[in-house]
Amino acid sequence: MSLTIGVDVGGTKVAAGVVDSDGTVLATAKRDTPADDQAKTVEVIIEVIAELRASHDVEAIGLGAAGFIDAQRSTVVFAPNLAWRDEPLRASVERSSGLPAVVENDANAAAWGEAQFGAARKVDSMVLLTIGTGVGGGVVLDGRLYRGHNGMAAEIGHLTVVPGGRRCGCGNRGCLERYASGRALVREARDLADVSPEYGARMLELGDGEPEGITGPEVTQAAREGDPAALEAFAVIGAWLGGGLASLAALLDPDMFVLGGGVSDAGELLRRPTEEAFLSGLTGRDYRQAPTVALAELGAQAGIVGAADLARRR
Amino acid sequence: MSLTIGVDVGGTKVAAGVVDSDGTVLATAKRDTPADDQAKTVEVIIEVIAELRASHDVEAIGLGAAGFIDAQRSTVVFAPNLAWRDEPLRASVERSSGLPAVVENDANAAAWGEAQFGAARKVDSMVLLTIGTGVGGGVVLDGRLYRGHNGMAAEIGHLTVVPGGRRCGCGNRGCLERYASGRALVREARDLADVSPEYGARMLELGDGEPEGITGPEVTQAAREGDPAALEAFAVIGAWLGGGLASLAALLDPDMFVLGGGVSDAGELLRRPTEEAFLSGLTGRDYRQAPTVALAELGAQAGIVGAADLARRR
Amino acid sequence: MSLTIGVDVGGTKVAAGVVDSDGTVLATAKRDTPADDQAKTVEVIIEVIAELRASHDVEAIGLGAAGFIDAQRSTVVFAPNLAWRDEPLRASVERSSGLPAVVENDANAAAWGEAQFGAARKVDSMVLLTIGTGVGGGVVLDGRLYRGHNGMAAEIGHLTVVPGGRRCGCGNRGCLERYASGRALVREARDLADVSPEYGARMLELGDGEPEGITGPEVTQAAREGDPAALEAFAVIGAWLGGGLASLAALLDPDMFVLGGGVSDAGELLRRPTEEAFLSGLTGRDYRQAPTVALAELGAQAGIVGAADLARRR
Amino acid sequence: MSLTIGVDVGGTKVAAGVVDSDGTVLATAKRDTPADDQAKTVEVIIEVIAELRASHDVEAIGLGAAGFIDAQRSTVVFAPNLAWRDEPLRASVERSSGLPAVVENDANAAAWGEAQFGAARKVDSMVLLTIGTGVGGGVVLDGRLYRGHNGMAAEIGHLTVVPGGRRCGCGNRGCLERYASGRALVREARDLADVSPEYGARMLELGDGEPEGITGPEVTQAAREGDPAALEAFAVIGAWLGGGLASLAALLDPDMFVLGGGVSDAGELLRRPTEEAFLSGLTGRDYRQAPTVALAELGAQAGIVGAADLARRR
Repeated sequence: MSLTIGVDVGGTKVAAGVVDSDGTVLATAKRDTPADDQAKTVEVIIEVIAELRASHDVEAIGLGAAGFIDAQRSTVVFAPNLAWRDEPLRASVERSSGLPAVVENDANAAAWGEAQFGAARKVDSMVLLTIGTGVGGGVVLDGRLYRGHNGMAAEIGHLTVVPGGRRCGCGNRGCLERYASGRALVREARDLADVSPEYGARMLELGDGEPEGITGPEVTQAAREGDPAALEAFAVIGAWLGGGLASLAALLDPDMFVLGGGVSDAGELLRRPTEEAFLSGLTGRDYRQAPTVALAELGAQAGIVGAADLARRR
Repeated sequence: MSLTIGVDVGGTKVAAGVVDSDGTVLATAKRDTPADDQAKTVEVIIEVIAELRASHDVEAIGLGAAGFIDAQRSTVVFAPNLAWRDEPLRASVERSSGLPAVVENDANAAAWGEAQFGAARKVDSMVLLTIGTGVGGGVVLDGRLYRGHNGMAAEIGHLTVVPGGRRCGCGNRGCLERYASGRALVREARDLADVSPEYGARMLELGDGEPEGITGPEVTQAAREGDPAALEAFAVIGAWLGGGLASLAALLDPDMFVLGGGVSDAGELLRRPTEEAFLSGLTGRDYRQAPTVALAELGAQAGIVGAADLARRR
Repeated sequence: MSLTIGVDVGGTKVAAGVVDSDGTVLATAKRDTPADDQAKTVEVIIEVIAELRASHDVEAIGLGAAGFIDAQRSTVVFAPNLAWRDEPLRASVERSSGLPAVVENDANAAAWGEAQFGAARKVDSMVLLTIGTGVGGGVVLDGRLYRGHNGMAAEIGHLTVVPGGRRCGCGNRGCLERYASGRALVREARDLADVSPEYGARMLELGDGEPEGITGPEVTQAAREGDPAALEAFAVIGAWLGGGLASLAALLDPDMFVLGGGVSDAGELLRRPTEEAFLSGLTGRDYRQAPTVALAELGAQAGIVGAADLARRR
Repeated sequence: MSLTIGVDVGGTKVAAGVVDSDGTVLATAKRDTPADDQAKTVEVIIEVIAELRASHDVEAIGLGAAGFIDAQRSTVVFAPNLAWRDEPLRASVERSSGLPAVVENDANAAAWGEAQFGAARKVDSMVLLTIGTGVGGGVVLDGRLYRGHNGMAAEIGHLTVVPGGRRCGCGNRGCLERYASGRALVREARDLADVSPEYGARMLELGDGEPEGITGPEVTQAAREGDPAALEAFAVIGAWLGGGLASLAALLDPDMFVLGGGVSDAGELLRRPTEEAFLSGLTGRDYRQAPTVALAELGAQAGIVGAADLARRR
């Protein structure tokens, strides 16, 4: 059975795996990312590939990187967390390995992974949202990964949801990720605790008494215990996320939305208020089958599995 | 050369044409729509087809209708302006004509027309916005019409742009079409004239002295004359529309946006403020080639041309 | 018992009355306002005064006019509906009548009338809101009419309630009167009927089938019949009004709010949703006695009665 | 010349002074507030009074406390920072000192101080805004301190400026102090630094590299150096504050606004953007003399001076 390697190049870790055509991960390797050294990061990528090939015979390599990838799936145009600019990653990897390679945006790779082998394996059209520090995503339409003219499609975190709203790192105001990301969750929780210390008492306790001590895990733990303030923070995030899904559904009418990324580890705490807000804001409810809102199933391996499969189908 | 017929079934007119494979319309026929009689409307459609076939030999029929079309492109599930529910239009037309037929949403058909033969004929991925009483549209991605799981994709007018904003006929609040349609243009103009009669004097004059007398043509005429209040009304609409395009670009990263529908007859009066707002709100400006914002080129025939071509490629 | 005359100078009528020290109106006179002729309007005012003095012995004259009055209560600086600029009304009336006179803003006069003899006669601090085409008002604090440095206090309709919101005739955006006036009520009702004709069917019927045919009386009648769309229109207006009251209470902590002006003829249809929104938005609920929200009691005579009493206390 | 004592009872310090009838502070005394012990705090107040009376002959005592004071100026109904409920402060101080006393809200006392002896000493009607952690204030109208029906007037920080906006400790959403306080300034600065580390580099440097390290003094220092991100943070706060002033002017038409509280130590950095936003949003600009926007002049002693003068005029 043919094997490929998938590599997930993140700002802190380079994680890779050997994957078969059923999406099963047979072996993995992981290194720290020397994020401030572009050449060294490429070396580390080449090393993990070599390590995996020592024990497995593979036919191609798929690389997912957090950044803008050109339309030829060859060059990392810009990767904010890697300090990369115009890195010809595909050429470097093909030269060193002698194998064909493709480069893909990491969220696109994860979307493809979930679409082929994860939560969305039975549907044709799906949108993955990766809810972490920011909000990213990938779009699979009619069974094909949609990449966009510049390879920059699915920047879901930068849908404008509040005209003139919160300032975003992208230079605009009111982007979805300023309201519906892990960072927004923490901000909401700190705000609640800051302006109403009694109401936020449990989160403050978990956060060593200071609003600044409250981070994602504290909010999730308190919410799991049933703390009303933490649940309100999740409800606020879910309401924004659900509103975003309603706009996405108006535009793309997919079969399914998949919630991934670190914040989705909170499971139903996030999914339920998101789905509720989504359904209440969905246009044309009476004339359509509403898309399902599901949790991602592949966890942190979605990117590896997706990149490996994209390499197989290169 | 092979010919097909395209039919555009609207709430007031049924317009049809014989179209060749270059998108040229060789002959047309038009009837009033008996909109309150579902069976009669089907009859009228069959009549215009028969009329055109009397002089032209055609191989297939494409029908565009303003409504929700099922995923099999056969049935009009719901058409608000035609009072249609679950009309098996494809079967009726195939039975009566003995020719193969396809049914498509009218804005999708128009998008396909512009994508193949109009403003977007040189690009792979485009979004058409039809700006009329409401806002509709169609999406062509990587050279293929994207229809969605329920055939309900591209409901661009129902992107939420203002949380809790103006009430929409779809039951939600804050939909784009409540801010960026012809109806919104007129509302803005009337508002300006109503609260500031001096400022809105020229539009009031054209509207027989009453805010209620101001309709689209009055606003366009005043704007063409350089009237500041009418230009402000276009600027407001354009700002909302451009904001919507920025969200669409974040998600779909197309090559081009095409502005069609009745309001786009105002040409640069609409396009310029829309483009300006779009570019100022586009995320990742520095790393991408911004999509072009163009005016539609096929006018009212876009739907006929698009439907005919979809029939050819059925 | 000493008598004074109160005159209410409006854009369509000049209404005057002889009032005793209990606020009882003993006689009235009324003329059409020749609104486009500043000198003639003054003549008409002098005539109605003369008419009333023919049968009653009065000691002073109070004039309420819809416009900005200077801090000396002498000159009408600007009256939009009368086309007046810098009219020395007090001097004209005193010269012609030989009696002392005071000029006051009409909403201030009405507030004083309600505060002395109407709904607020038992309280020390009150705010009147006159809800008509626009929203105006007057403020009585610790038993004294508060006029402001320029005589322009209590422009309640121009509190900003939506940053960047609807354009106002005053040149700003988002003013309360754009959301909570009679004009806003009609706009909301027309919007509902326009985007959802089924939902707005009863109002459309009363309005001869067209959204533009719906005016205030149609909305009120439909609401009285229990029509959900008309009730929603009142609820929307009331929600904005109640929000405005909450801000006023945060600032002024009065004993009572009084709702007057033409829209307040709808009585509980307006008062109830206003009060509900007000109480739910009132800061510091637990530590204060909430101000009462009452309907005005003097109706259209509030201005006459208030102006007459201000003349007595000149 | 007659002397009185003013006491400013805050959550961290009890500060008192002997003040003459010109508002000159002749002597001061200060103690830490035992904030969690209601009885001890009263004792400390009595001690500082006794200390000052040892060297000065005074005729009355004025007390300003951060909390809700009843309409009789006797009882502290609720003081969040002192954990006080229903403290009969006036009676305690009168009994122990044998002198007449009055109790006032601290911001009211400060407003009175600025109105009599500070920035607003030449005007009749003024509004003080104290911009610290939150936003408070006091209102002097026609030369008299306006206290409201429950003694709760001038809760300026709780004007609603964004419908459904940021959650406030008072239980509502969208209160001015959530957008225009010292806390909002810091939040804005941290947000800027968090989403755009390059843009916020100078503030991050001053804040030891972390957004959470940025507090008010860092923002002010960076702004003084001309750092664009810090200046943007002040501009955002000033825009909200100026918008609030425009609403206050529409309602109260005062001669002057005075900006006090800790954030006003930034001086022109705060005043200028506030004034600019205020003037651009002021209704009826053309018909009025716009209120002046001035910085407070008495600094931290405003409360002492005001309370002492209120005691003299008891």
